[in-house]
Amino acid sequence: MSLPVLINGALVADAGHAVAVDDRGLNYGDGLFETAFLRDGAVRFLDAHLTRLQQGCMRLGIAYPGEALVADIRALASRARTAVLKIVITRGAGARGYRPVADAPVNRILSLHPAPAGNDDPLVVRWCQLRLSRNPALAGLKHLNRLEQVLAQCEWSDEAIGEALMLDTEGELVSATASNVFIVRERALHTPDLRFCGIRGVMRAQVLRVAHELGMHTIEEPLWPHDLAGASEVFVTNAVRGIRPVVALDDQRWNAGPIARQLSAALAL
Amino acid sequence: MSLPVLINGALVADAGHAVAVDDRGLNYGDGLFETAFLRDGAVRFLDAHLTRLQQGCMRLGIAYPGEALVADIRALASRARTAVLKIVITRGAGARGYRPVADAPVNRILSLHPAPAGNDDPLVVRWCQLRLSRNPALAGLKHLNRLEQVLAQCEWSDEAIGEALMLDTEGELVSATASNVFIVRERALHTPDLRFCGIRGVMRAQVLRVAHELGMHTIEEPLWPHDLAGASEVFVTNAVRGIRPVVALDDQRWNAGPIARQLSAALAL
Repeated sequence: MSLPVLINGALVADAGHAVAVDDRGLNYGDGLFETAFLRDGAVRFLDAHLTRLQQGCMRLGIAYPGEALVADIRALASRARTAVLKIVITRGAGARGYRPVADAPVNRILSLHPAPAGNDDPLVVRWCQLRLSRNPALAGLKHLNRLEQVLAQCEWSDEAIGEALMLDTEGELVSATASNVFIVRERALHTPDLRFCGIRGVMRAQVLRVAHELGMHTIEEPLWPHDLAGASEVFVTNAVRGIRPVVALDDQRWNAGPIARQLSAALAL
Repeated sequence: MSLPVLINGALVADAGHAVAVDDRGLNYGDGLFETAFLRDGAVRFLDAHLTRLQQGCMRLGIAYPGEALVADIRALASRARTAVLKIVITRGAGARGYRPVADAPVNRILSLHPAPAGNDDPLVVRWCQLRLSRNPALAGLKHLNRLEQVLAQCEWSDEAIGEALMLDTEGELVSATASNVFIVRERALHTPDLRFCGIRGVMRAQVLRVAHELGMHTIEEPLWPHDLAGASEVFVTNAVRGIRPVVALDDQRWNAGPIARQLSAALAL
């Protein structure tokens, strides 16, 4: 990790010895994160990332460190042209025990990472065996409790497989391991409503917004594996990789289609 | 945090700057923990803690650092007579992204904490609003994804309430926020089977073991809130606090009863 790291506004000299042993992020996953794309020195969809983080803080009862965070981002973004910006917010230091310490200041941990190599290869996906648990209290949040995603990505090592789709414990389609999923039927965009689990991705929201502006019908609803069969296009989205058309899942095939291209163009991805 | 901290076998000079920014425990809760009671310089039920940790590592695909961990515990336990020993194991350093880095060494983070003051006050509990999510893939594990427990303990501040009982999303009784729960009916011990969620506590296992040795009938099964009504005793267990009789939940009342006393005595708690 040679790219810069900023903790609570200060550049870190030794990122290998930087975080407190009693940080609640480490001990309980008690916090949130954002992964944003830094392009030409500017954070793409910055307002959307900050709004989601603020909403997440509100739901978890964490004080949103808005002004300090904006200053952090400005300081770090000036140090690279193209990179991935990761922001971690934790509930700060804790005593032993789940109950938060009153008035402990939150910790802000920002780091830059190499941007992934551009890859327009057709995306082949598979199914995950691991199911996502349902909890409306945590649904939609990009919180730090991510063991399910870790175990899901441990399921395959074949580099020809670029992502994997996940169901929840009741069999509903939720997302891919690190992306949201959309299907196109008769020029309408369908995506899981994420009422029980999954992350409300920043790119997902941008896609829904711009599709609406383009006059497409957009539907957030429960989806099931069989809904993929009737799709003319399938694509996955995330803030760093943008919109990626899915061309194969087991014996199902789709073309990288015009809707995904139109949305990518409208969002200038 | 003035008590000693040991990371990967080395005493830490500055526990406020000790853990790597890219530690997967911090970023994803990708790890496990144990909380054990150090009494008269010895870790109570040490073998049971290590066995559970080893089993947890196996389920998560983390290399169990057995010998090194035993040496760590020996080194740290020699520095106090009575304390709480916390052990955190993480999958080590990671690149950005959920997929583990091959062969990254696990991190071992051990810390001592003050033992809680002995408290034999009758335990009054309440219900949590927050429900626990179901996922058989994670059920039973003492992993680092603990946001549900954090939010549960945020629900009350009344110091007269010592614990709170939790249901899962389907309404089954699972545990308290930081303890397992038992009910006694006709000298038989009943406890939730934790097939969908909850932590298989070390003290829970000891209670089941010794109850069986004492000739009691023990039943791990699905329990529901109405099962509390028919109980002659209710108690909660954890590795640090032992067995604590519950005397009140809303308008329900129980006596601190003979079974809890008998089990505590048999376990020399």
